[in-house]
Amino acid sequence: MARLLRDVGEHAWIARLVGRLGAAARDRRVLVGPGDDAAAIRPGRRPLLLTTDALIEGVHFRAGWAAPSVLGRRAFAVNASDLAAMGGEPTFALLALEAPGRLRTADLDALVRGFARAAARAGARLVGGNLVAGSHLAITATLLGEASGPVVGRAGARPGDALYVTGTLGRAGVAVRALRAGRRTPWPLPPLRLRAGRLLAPLAHAMIDVSDGLLQDAGHLCRASGASAEILAACLPVATACRRALGDEAARFAATSGEDYELLVAVPPRAERALAGLRLRLGCRLTRIGRIVAGRPVVRVLDAAGQPVATRRAGFDHFR
Amino acid sequence: MARLLRDVGEHAWIARLVGRLGAAARDRRVLVGPGDDAAAIRPGRRPLLLTTDALIEGVHFRAGWAAPSVLGRRAFAVNASDLAAMGGEPTFALLALEAPGRLRTADLDALVRGFARAAARAGARLVGGNLVAGSHLAITATLLGEASGPVVGRAGARPGDALYVTGTLGRAGVAVRALRAGRRTPWPLPPLRLRAGRLLAPLAHAMIDVSDGLLQDAGHLCRASGASAEILAACLPVATACRRALGDEAARFAATSGEDYELLVAVPPRAERALAGLRLRLGCRLTRIGRIVAGRPVVRVLDAAGQPVATRRAGFDHFR
Repeated sequence: MARLLRDVGEHAWIARLVGRLGAAARDRRVLVGPGDDAAAIRPGRRPLLLTTDALIEGVHFRAGWAAPSVLGRRAFAVNASDLAAMGGEPTFALLALEAPGRLRTADLDALVRGFARAAARAGARLVGGNLVAGSHLAITATLLGEASGPVVGRAGARPGDALYVTGTLGRAGVAVRALRAGRRTPWPLPPLRLRAGRLLAPLAHAMIDVSDGLLQDAGHLCRASGASAEILAACLPVATACRRALGDEAARFAATSGEDYELLVAVPPRAERALAGLRLRLGCRLTRIGRIVAGRPVVRVLDAAGQPVATRRAGFDHFR
Repeated sequence: MARLLRDVGEHAWIARLVGRLGAAARDRRVLVGPGDDAAAIRPGRRPLLLTTDALIEGVHFRAGWAAPSVLGRRAFAVNASDLAAMGGEPTFALLALEAPGRLRTADLDALVRGFARAAARAGARLVGGNLVAGSHLAITATLLGEASGPVVGRAGARPGDALYVTGTLGRAGVAVRALRAGRRTPWPLPPLRLRAGRLLAPLAHAMIDVSDGLLQDAGHLCRASGASAEILAACLPVATACRRALGDEAARFAATSGEDYELLVAVPPRAERALAGLRLRLGCRLTRIGRIVAGRPVVRVLDAAGQPVATRRAGFDHFR
């Protein structure tokens, strides 16, 4: 019979988990691992990157959209995407869970295992966390990271910079739209652009991950940089699934649908040749989609004739 | 008219907050502050402590138990308590919030301000976070810290060690019981034993914070240390409010009620003289309540005649 969280209890579940995590390969960076009041790690010498992001049932996903292990992988990936956007790579992770007592312990185990394995594959280690009873599943992860090169933020883009985006846009948006409508379809995992972020950082003036929709995240980059952006609709790397689903509307949809977790990067003209030399090593497409221009921090989408394309709301906002 | 979170929106609220946080005193440890994909900080040379803990509406508190700013202070304090129990002090913080759209922005502002001020008073800095819409208020904080001396964990207590506890027990438990019964009464803030933790750490074999009830947390310490504990009921520093409310039952209640956030510390006999010399500097009472003995990891409560006292469940478990 399936054991539920309320049958096992918080402390017994944690003790079992700590036993399993402790049995994993030793890591000399970890002085005190999971199971104590706090973890203790050896700091590196490089700047330390810190980020936190949450996946909440009923907000970011609904029951049945993904297996527990895939939710764990996803929780890792959405956080790692923030590190990739700074040119960093994850080193340590904490996992704060809220879960209902009716949840099967096997499911929570699988979730944590999915998270820990995704972390390990990216060179990071799960060193601590928290578990509380709640009405629904909420996964809040914190990632620490380091950058082997420069740390790149959202600010710093300058007029004349070219705007590039990794991968394709709109695939996750189309899937989420179908899932919300009750259709069964795979929910794509974030693409994890850690390698691309690391390689692009030394050439970039500014970088951001596209999680709330390209236009909105481009807007964040523009506001932080005090500049404007022009994006060419015809240049957007629209995902095949999005084109199939939306036809002529695909580019417009892909510009504002969220959850792509690609990187948007502003590169000065002098670095574009070096960028071309990197393409084969990035592990993904890299598409020039526009440029930074002087002016108020707005993002304009232009058609092939250079005329503004009307777009709806810029992207995802949790409260609008 | 009060503005609600859903009127202002996620990104506008974050932008305003980042403006305010950025306007606060500069900190040369911070390379990239709030508002980017990740924060970047200069690491120290000492071991880095990491902890995460959550306060969730309907689980840890109900609406009306505390003003928003006090909830923020509390969210900081429950995390800082975990660092204190390792002999550490907080350096940086991340704040992941889930909040309903009907929440007033002024309340969320006050919550974050309460958190950031409590952090600043303890020498730490809020460098990042996350905000998502949800059905209720959930505050998940991550704290980083450093220890100026040795890092003390739960493991390491040895037979012959004396067990001490800081402050008093049972005050928070009595208040929470009254609040849950619908009575209006102050909800005591955790006492923040950072100074005590730092001073006790060099003398301690093991230390833990008492958040889920003394007996339960003593049990965690015993299991991690592979030893047994004997606690003398008559020695427990029962809070006055608890004695008044419960009379003869006070000690039994104080041994298992949670949320005291005091420190339980195992000290070898040779360090007890040094401990006596510290008493006036701790900023709180320190009471010898028992000892570590050899044997299976169980916690026995003894009466004045050395006979076992029957206790109910050991303490708080989120799912039992």
